Amino acid sequence: MTGYTTLLSRSEIEEGLVLAPKFDAHGLVTVVATDADSGDPVMVAHMNAEALRRTIETGEAWYWSRSRQALWRKGETSGQLQSVVEMRVDCDQDAIWLRVRIGGDGGCCHTGRRTCFYRVQPTGAGAALRPMMFCE
Amino acid sequence: MTGYTTLLSRSEIEEGLVLAPKFDAHGLVTVVATDADSGDPVMVAHMNAEALRRTIETGEAWYWSRSRQALWRKGETSGQLQSVVEMRVDCDQDAIWLRVRIGGDGGCCHTGRRTCFYRVQPTGAGAALRPMMFCE
Repeated sequence: MTGYTTLLSRSEIEEGLVLAPKFDAHGLVTVVATDADSGDPVMVAHMNAEALRRTIETGEAWYWSRSRQALWRKGETSGQLQSVVEMRVDCDQDAIWLRVRIGGDGGCCHTGRRTCFYRVQPTGAGAALRPMMFCE
Repeated sequence: MTGYTTLLSRSEIEEGLVLAPKFDAHGLVTVVATDADSGDPVMVAHMNAEALRRTIETGEAWYWSRSRQALWRKGETSGQLQSVVEMRVDCDQDAIWLRVRIGGDGGCCHTGRRTCFYRVQPTGAGAALRPMMFCE
């Protein structure tokens, strides 16, 4: 029981205006958070039904921590709270995009960086043999 | 056997320059693709080791289709090929961010839209009772 409807047709899921998240076998949807100012992805994480409900009601990002198996109010200890500027849902409703404004020092990653995506993997012919590069 | 190393410490995974993807129980990593021009997310999908290898070597996005259980050269039939402008890896290496330039008509979603994220879910007090809105 997630509190969300599951009795919708494919057309209702894709073209309807009722939120009907498709949770995976672990009860989770994937979330990508982007910085509302820069537009860049800052993290990829997950929400269960309760985290999703709290995010919608409070306008503040809550996740489900898979490592801690616990609800996670992002930024509660660091001050890097994520205020939701906009929430979007994808076509099949198994992924969510949050545009967030970040509190505290504006960071996101537990390594201290602004974004979790701080390394570039080269692509193209021969790239598999080249090391990654830091970009933050 | 993915062809990628798995024998790295947490510090090597987070601060190293060796690609060591953390595949999940299904052998997949999560991928968010953003439009290199607008910066907006266009889709969230998955890669297995082979899709990741092909993406790196060819500079063109390959995914693993969970519904079809098959390698998926994005855009092969639609012409909406995704040329990788930049690939980034997140801190714990279980998520990938692709900045892509899209071929054909520039679309991405199977519903015909530019992005899979074409609906906004309201957030804030009372928002759970309000319907989503189309934004594409």
